[in-house]
Amino acid sequence: MNNHTALVIKSALDNWNIQIGRVNKLLDELTDEQLLKEVAPGRNRGIYLLGHLTTVHDKMLPLLNFEKQMFPQLENIFLDSPDKKIENIPSAKELRILWKQVNDNLAFHFNNLKQDEWFQKHNSVSETDFEKEPHRNRLNVVLNRTNHLAYHYGQMIFLRTI
Amino acid sequence: MNNHTALVIKSALDNWNIQIGRVNKLLDELTDEQLLKEVAPGRNRGIYLLGHLTTVHDKMLPLLNFEKQMFPQLENIFLDSPDKKIENIPSAKELRILWKQVNDNLAFHFNNLKQDEWFQKHNSVSETDFEKEPHRNRLNVVLNRTNHLAYHYGQMIFLRTI
Repeated sequence: MNNHTALVIKSALDNWNIQIGRVNKLLDELTDEQLLKEVAPGRNRGIYLLGHLTTVHDKMLPLLNFEKQMFPQLENIFLDSPDKKIENIPSAKELRILWKQVNDNLAFHFNNLKQDEWFQKHNSVSETDFEKEPHRNRLNVVLNRTNHLAYHYGQMIFLRTI
Repeated sequence: MNNHTALVIKSALDNWNIQIGRVNKLLDELTDEQLLKEVAPGRNRGIYLLGHLTTVHDKMLPLLNFEKQMFPQLENIFLDSPDKKIENIPSAKELRILWKQVNDNLAFHFNNLKQDEWFQKHNSVSETDFEKEPHRNRLNVVLNRTNHLAYHYGQMIFLRTI
């Protein structure tokens, strides 16, 4: 009966993997040139959103207490600055590789986590706060970041020609 | 210790409510005229996405075994047909009301559900399949629909003037 927790962890990871799979499929369809276009007039370019998602996912590694961020140099470009502010950004070709590396690394850690470990605190909540708010755990980070991914995927899809 | 299931139900509902709150805030900011605009050139109009989300959420009522769909007449307009295909669609003013009614109704049912009931099967999976795939439960529908909402919210946000 109380396999409920295992079921919901599976659901959370399934939903994460569905979104990652959709973005990967879209990236396979888009050329590097298409990624250089704005998703809508005056909005972020595809390449910026790809870099932004890569950075946010990279930061999940320390946030979930897995390991250090792989590419801290991306943070200034894709998190602290808006698009088109910084001139020298990584190429689409390069970002496609980093995106894959970060997500593969997350998948590795996700797959090694035991059920109870999903309910340990994430790294940006204090021990004291976590005692009062035990929902601020690793699994909640995955749910939250899945929505973040879906949000930007909804924008990147506009790079597809109509 | 094994309050894990309760925690993850809270996380799922929190994430749902965060997305609903964001869309509501955006709707408060947008005029009815803005909702009549396409979110990007050649893409869906805001009013269509609002109707689409209202319809998908309305269909969650029977899908989650709560009650009948409230506004089945929306289905042909916002689910079976693309935008700009059907001429007489409800007004933005009207859709704002239906959107709120549907979400209030869902919230009522969500709040009345006991922990175990979240893990009962949803309405589009057979008993036989559910035995093999017990993750196809109510809670999984909420996770999935939260991502769907985030996806379209990422598009509707473009109606905000830059």
